[in-house]
Amino acid sequence: MTQNADRYLDDFAVGDSFQTADHTFTEAEITDFARRFDPQPWHLDRDAAARGPFKAIAASGWHTTALTMRLLVDSGVMRATGILGTGVDELRWRAPVYPQDTLQVVATVVSVERSAERADRGSLRVRVETRNQRGEIVLSLIANLSMKRRG
Amino acid sequence: MTQNADRYLDDFAVGDSFQTADHTFTEAEITDFARRFDPQPWHLDRDAAARGPFKAIAASGWHTTALTMRLLVDSGVMRATGILGTGVDELRWRAPVYPQDTLQVVATVVSVERSAERADRGSLRVRVETRNQRGEIVLSLIANLSMKRRG
Repeated sequence: MTQNADRYLDDFAVGDSFQTADHTFTEAEITDFARRFDPQPWHLDRDAAARGPFKAIAASGWHTTALTMRLLVDSGVMRATGILGTGVDELRWRAPVYPQDTLQVVATVVSVERSAERADRGSLRVRVETRNQRGEIVLSLIANLSMKRRG
Repeated sequence: MTQNADRYLDDFAVGDSFQTADHTFTEAEITDFARRFDPQPWHLDRDAAARGPFKAIAASGWHTTALTMRLLVDSGVMRATGILGTGVDELRWRAPVYPQDTLQVVATVVSVERSAERADRGSLRVRVETRNQRGEIVLSLIANLSMKRRG
């Protein structure tokens, strides 16, 4: 499916699936994000991290989540007219993400609903899974999106 | 309640509530985060944003979420031994966040459960609400945390 043109609710169907490009995390990226948003020792300092829950420096879960968003935006799948993320359900960090891990995202449409109140809009629910280079799911979530209808 | 010492599951009770310091967003912060993680025009460009869903540059929802984490970490409430965020439910972006908006977070414990499998751990669910300077909730979520028990 072409991912570059503007798209509307009507262009999505349950089961549609999209794969993003991949991204390899560096330790500098992980510690930079953590310094800004999640300054806990196991994201910042090698010695503290070695004694911590992940046994080495690991990315903040919020960093993995933000990177998932970046890969989705870059894929063009979000380029729908009037798209709006309204929320997320069942966000789970299922495995740690370490420096040099390469992540890729698969998004699958799980529901498409016309709005009862507004003829020009509807909502889409999308299951998002982010996997590492071994195919392990490191993050999963359900994204709730509001989107314009065609015409 | 003192928020600086290491804490265990046993130190939390349903209804305990914590308030963080506040943070005022700048436009530069908003566009910097968006360039890295959510490069959609309404987070980046004033002219495009004026025509977009928020009528002006607004923060990425993931930026508001990451900043919520930062305020919680800085408050010391997360400084529990072996704390681990396992996931989030019902994340909702309820109002846009604009440059110069000042956000503050309130976290309230909604459940404390001992683990059935492991005597040394348990899980905590915390309702998190982030409000702006007018008291409007801009973000809410339920955080699921795994934590060590005392002794």
